Amino acid sequence: MTKPLRVGLIGYGFMGRTHSNAYSQVNHFFDVPYQPQLKVICGLEKHVAEAFAKRWGYESVETDWRRVIERDDIDLVDICVPNNVHAEIAMAAAKAGKAVFCEKPLALNTAQAEQMAAAVEEAKVPNMVSFNYRRVPAVTLAKKLLDEGRLGRVFHYRSQFLQDWTISADVPQGGMATWRLDAKAAGSGVTGDLLAHCIDTAVWLNGGIRDVCAMTETFIKERKNVETGKVEPVNIDDACAFMCHFANGSLGLFESTRYARGHKALYTLELNGQKASLRWDLHDLHRLQYFDHADDSLVRGWRSVHISDSDMPYMGAWWVPGLQIGYEHTFIHQLADFLDGMGKGQPASPTFRDAVETQRVCDAILASAKSGQWVDVA
Amino acid sequence: MTKPLRVGLIGYGFMGRTHSNAYSQVNHFFDVPYQPQLKVICGLEKHVAEAFAKRWGYESVETDWRRVIERDDIDLVDICVPNNVHAEIAMAAAKAGKAVFCEKPLALNTAQAEQMAAAVEEAKVPNMVSFNYRRVPAVTLAKKLLDEGRLGRVFHYRSQFLQDWTISADVPQGGMATWRLDAKAAGSGVTGDLLAHCIDTAVWLNGGIRDVCAMTETFIKERKNVETGKVEPVNIDDACAFMCHFANGSLGLFESTRYARGHKALYTLELNGQKASLRWDLHDLHRLQYFDHADDSLVRGWRSVHISDSDMPYMGAWWVPGLQIGYEHTFIHQLADFLDGMGKGQPASPTFRDAVETQRVCDAILASAKSGQWVDVA
Amino acid sequence: MTKPLRVGLIGYGFMGRTHSNAYSQVNHFFDVPYQPQLKVICGLEKHVAEAFAKRWGYESVETDWRRVIERDDIDLVDICVPNNVHAEIAMAAAKAGKAVFCEKPLALNTAQAEQMAAAVEEAKVPNMVSFNYRRVPAVTLAKKLLDEGRLGRVFHYRSQFLQDWTISADVPQGGMATWRLDAKAAGSGVTGDLLAHCIDTAVWLNGGIRDVCAMTETFIKERKNVETGKVEPVNIDDACAFMCHFANGSLGLFESTRYARGHKALYTLELNGQKASLRWDLHDLHRLQYFDHADDSLVRGWRSVHISDSDMPYMGAWWVPGLQIGYEHTFIHQLADFLDGMGKGQPASPTFRDAVETQRVCDAILASAKSGQWVDVA
Amino acid sequence: MTKPLRVGLIGYGFMGRTHSNAYSQVNHFFDVPYQPQLKVICGLEKHVAEAFAKRWGYESVETDWRRVIERDDIDLVDICVPNNVHAEIAMAAAKAGKAVFCEKPLALNTAQAEQMAAAVEEAKVPNMVSFNYRRVPAVTLAKKLLDEGRLGRVFHYRSQFLQDWTISADVPQGGMATWRLDAKAAGSGVTGDLLAHCIDTAVWLNGGIRDVCAMTETFIKERKNVETGKVEPVNIDDACAFMCHFANGSLGLFESTRYARGHKALYTLELNGQKASLRWDLHDLHRLQYFDHADDSLVRGWRSVHISDSDMPYMGAWWVPGLQIGYEHTFIHQLADFLDGMGKGQPASPTFRDAVETQRVCDAILASAKSGQWVDVA
Repeated sequence: MTKPLRVGLIGYGFMGRTHSNAYSQVNHFFDVPYQPQLKVICGLEKHVAEAFAKRWGYESVETDWRRVIERDDIDLVDICVPNNVHAEIAMAAAKAGKAVFCEKPLALNTAQAEQMAAAVEEAKVPNMVSFNYRRVPAVTLAKKLLDEGRLGRVFHYRSQFLQDWTISADVPQGGMATWRLDAKAAGSGVTGDLLAHCIDTAVWLNGGIRDVCAMTETFIKERKNVETGKVEPVNIDDACAFMCHFANGSLGLFESTRYARGHKALYTLELNGQKASLRWDLHDLHRLQYFDHADDSLVRGWRSVHISDSDMPYMGAWWVPGLQIGYEHTFIHQLADFLDGMGKGQPASPTFRDAVETQRVCDAILASAKSGQWVDVA
Repeated sequence: MTKPLRVGLIGYGFMGRTHSNAYSQVNHFFDVPYQPQLKVICGLEKHVAEAFAKRWGYESVETDWRRVIERDDIDLVDICVPNNVHAEIAMAAAKAGKAVFCEKPLALNTAQAEQMAAAVEEAKVPNMVSFNYRRVPAVTLAKKLLDEGRLGRVFHYRSQFLQDWTISADVPQGGMATWRLDAKAAGSGVTGDLLAHCIDTAVWLNGGIRDVCAMTETFIKERKNVETGKVEPVNIDDACAFMCHFANGSLGLFESTRYARGHKALYTLELNGQKASLRWDLHDLHRLQYFDHADDSLVRGWRSVHISDSDMPYMGAWWVPGLQIGYEHTFIHQLADFLDGMGKGQPASPTFRDAVETQRVCDAILASAKSGQWVDVA
Repeated sequence: MTKPLRVGLIGYGFMGRTHSNAYSQVNHFFDVPYQPQLKVICGLEKHVAEAFAKRWGYESVETDWRRVIERDDIDLVDICVPNNVHAEIAMAAAKAGKAVFCEKPLALNTAQAEQMAAAVEEAKVPNMVSFNYRRVPAVTLAKKLLDEGRLGRVFHYRSQFLQDWTISADVPQGGMATWRLDAKAAGSGVTGDLLAHCIDTAVWLNGGIRDVCAMTETFIKERKNVETGKVEPVNIDDACAFMCHFANGSLGLFESTRYARGHKALYTLELNGQKASLRWDLHDLHRLQYFDHADDSLVRGWRSVHISDSDMPYMGAWWVPGLQIGYEHTFIHQLADFLDGMGKGQPASPTFRDAVETQRVCDAILASAKSGQWVDVA
Repeated sequence: MTKPLRVGLIGYGFMGRTHSNAYSQVNHFFDVPYQPQLKVICGLEKHVAEAFAKRWGYESVETDWRRVIERDDIDLVDICVPNNVHAEIAMAAAKAGKAVFCEKPLALNTAQAEQMAAAVEEAKVPNMVSFNYRRVPAVTLAKKLLDEGRLGRVFHYRSQFLQDWTISADVPQGGMATWRLDAKAAGSGVTGDLLAHCIDTAVWLNGGIRDVCAMTETFIKERKNVETGKVEPVNIDDACAFMCHFANGSLGLFESTRYARGHKALYTLELNGQKASLRWDLHDLHRLQYFDHADDSLVRGWRSVHISDSDMPYMGAWWVPGLQIGYEHTFIHQLADFLDGMGKGQPASPTFRDAVETQRVCDAILASAKSGQWVDVA
């Protein structure tokens, strides 16, 4: 019953691995209408691409992404390269009638994101952006609880994404491993890399953001560029915090940094509603904290919900109660949803269009940080 | 409206301080029918007793406990000395018609405890044993939840009391600071000192213990005795674990040691019932963990109940929600209950009689550890 | 050796109780050069004051604070009344040569705080403001670790104070129990009540704040005023968040609200430094979380430091390892330090002068929230 | 460079899935000398086996395990069927010269386990038993820390495996889903199913067990048998606790039950050593708790080590710091080690021989529970 889906993956870095894993695993656990076939892996260095192909079972290798798009035997183009190349590839792929799956952030800025969204819409091709944290079962559960109205009116949303990997001044910028510190490749620093995740989830859970007021900081002003070999100014934001108003009247407070010693990938979120509150963090991604004010006061407290039973989102596909899954599974879930959507002819969120909204907030953040003013999310 | 209650305290060690604090504080927070008056502190070394008297406001000092009992101006004798002296003092005090408050464990063995219970009952004097952990609000709450039947049939009770203060072979035995390592003064090691607490709470919460099977260990076989100056065999149990059956059919598992690196006073308890479970530990004494199987499965999890609201046991007397109390308050609570009981002419549990039961279990444990057999709690 | 210190306490509310407790307890646990004598309690309603006097042992009662200041038998005036009365009382007390102990926030605004600081300095009277959280042992330990340079350069400071007691629209404003919701009595809402604590600790730990950018919100716009009986606009801030730059170049992020369902008094703080990070919260006040990057990477992790050993700040005065203290002890510690300072003729921080700085930040916050601009802390 | 390894899997239940996943994934993440080829899945019901084959990519299907062993195109026989069939299959496979991978517990009793170990040794075939929890990275790290002597002399080992899935009297026994409640298929209850895991890990970490004293309980005495349709006595142990002495002089305390409301698969272990302690549990399997007494006392506390950096056991193969893996990965790790061992001609522990030791302890436990006596682990 499943149809083949011929995949061309562009980019063999960290995200290339998470996506390849998803293609390998999705049919083992989910009954989806497509069976991915790994046709080609494309990357700049041929021998790296070849090793990657061998490991994951890709049938062929390319070093120029244009070749992937030209090929007739590719149904889906998957973009796992630095941010500054997303737009060109995605629009070419759309034009060629390929389905497009793109890593986040979608684009370098809103204008570019708009063009990309227009391109896939015009081409009527299935498209999705990899904001994978929506598919952590605990986060999906949070969405369900909110949609059921269990929190009541929301007063507060707060979220962090804290890392500590760039504290040393010896970390360089540029190149394969550290392009995220190079403004040309990444567009921005933690705003596009980390806050984009926080914003995508926030808007999904709590609705649109009306206006923002932000500050950014670059703690280490110069780093060696591995491509030029020279010490050059660092142009990305090492840290960014912002306050905001959501359209529903709640207040938001967001922070991201790569200078929070002791936190590797501490993505947290918390919502406080009139009736209930909830909290989650990526370092214990298989738990949701939940507080229900309606509980009998003698035994009222934050509940640590261990997300492993089969009635939890996506968990029916996995193991048995008490046994946790991890990070990589979020990519499998999002692929399953994407393939399901394709089968039904329905978009799977977040589409390129959805991601434009996140881009808009990111642009407002960077503008606000520059001006020191509140900025409307246009 | 409050009547004076003239107190004679025997023992100025750690427990002498916790009791003195309770006398000082009880009327500030609880509306009890008595106002303690600190008439006399009694201890072996006069200058220590005098300093203690000055600090806490005792009116006079004695160095022989018999003098305290002879005095007409004493209503309550409070016994805070090593275990081997409890019986003689308590029985003399009872005979003299004094109310008696005694530190735990009540006695060196069941026979002695029986005599003591008989003595206070014959003299019809108010009496109580200081198993203070019953009056941790979270533990009192546990009792309330059990009495309300919220757990249903209980299957399991487990409890630990873990310390690490005797791991070094340089810790001596005997003397003021380390009499707990001297079998003559203490009777037993962790069994009487720590497991007695676990047992008192367990029997209170879960009913009587039918039989036990225990093992004990003395890891460091010889220690210097500070009284004799000689290295002598250690005769107390450094560690003790036991299995048991409760009368209600549930299984018990208990463990205590002074060799659990990293745990200072980790008294824990957990009950698993058909409908709910609960858990508590002394290192975060202001929280109760509670799991209710009847919760909606999507948001079912262990609840961390922060015990600070005014509807929690004893907490109406203290501060405002969110603000925690500590260890010393358990002694104030037990004193308040004891004074309340005296006002009403009702015993406050645990009485000497109640403590006989705990002694019986301790004796069975030590007998089982010696014989390697299951022993009935006679 | 201890000298008497004759105390006049003005205010018998929640803070009147915490201070009375400190006076009762300080000499039991700390060797300080003064022995407080509870001469007079002053409050508006005589029968309430009398009951309070009886409970705590005050020798007399007044209903007009001016009478307290006129009396010759008072050495220390302790101010535990709503914020709008602090200045008048404090300045009169200073003028009369009394030592002055004042609840926080010191004043309604910076100008008033400056006058008060000038008054006590001119009168050369001992003075202190009750930012009690500095004296949580874990927080004092944090200060020590920072002063020893263990964190290295600080990048981030974040702090919250979250409550949930005003979510219901039925909570009124004004009167004895809810004056904190009445702008006339309180000056501001969470900013002066809760953020003032966060700011005092932050400046103490991490140095001065250069500029701030804030937002405030009043979620429930009208409440019944218990004094007028009418529904009136709410003029205080229900929630306030602000970003800031510290003088040392670190970024600050602060938030306070009374609409965070599930949090009673969740005061949290976290610092991220180059070498180490630390974290603390009031709901488990006896623990400090500490991360040291210098640890062997195989066993590197956040350490949960249980603050109970005798080498911890203030803890040598209390019980034994593993046994926790609570909220009320912070007031005893600050009184001990104040009395020690008086004995040595040295000010005990935070003095009125220190508190002016906190007031300055609060004013800047409120100004920024109004203007939507960054505001320098003048 | 990798050689094909032709796999015949017997059993398509829960364990069949975890093993199939390991075969699918191992080469994506580990550089091992073999590439599994999924030749055949064998199960009693053909249509189930066919569906399983389709999902996982098995080339063929059998319904009689003897057929698998007869086939020439099978190198490895993997046994994922109920315990009572392990011996016959394993010995036949060994005799046929196949490598044998067997689910735990190895056998129904020690005698059978001995025969099985003898069989694979005589046949000189690679063999391993699937005690997968050794390969949780946190547990493997614990082993490393112990081997490095970081804990010093060990005083205590404690371990639990708590579940709650059989509390309802409506859960039947027998059949595909509930054979674990049927003594004929399972041999024992929690002892073989859950404690066997605890014992395997314990012996691996802390050395041999000398003697045991156990108690067992069957809370619900009769359940419907889904095969016979009749209500029949339950002959397995619902709960089992035991005390023991390790050869190194440390004390052990173990407990397992399926009646611990609120715990799904709470496998915990803790070791207390002279110098350090460590703790782990399966509900947060990606963390190790570690306490090092050598730490500076001011910042000494239990460390929560988040196991995600690339220097942690097995973690170099996975993602980036901060991102957790889950339960299924333990099977991939054990397969990688097994294949590595095959490549080097070295056994990978636990071999059948290693598993005999665990069986011996299980037998002693069941004998002790019956006799009420301490039993030597012969």
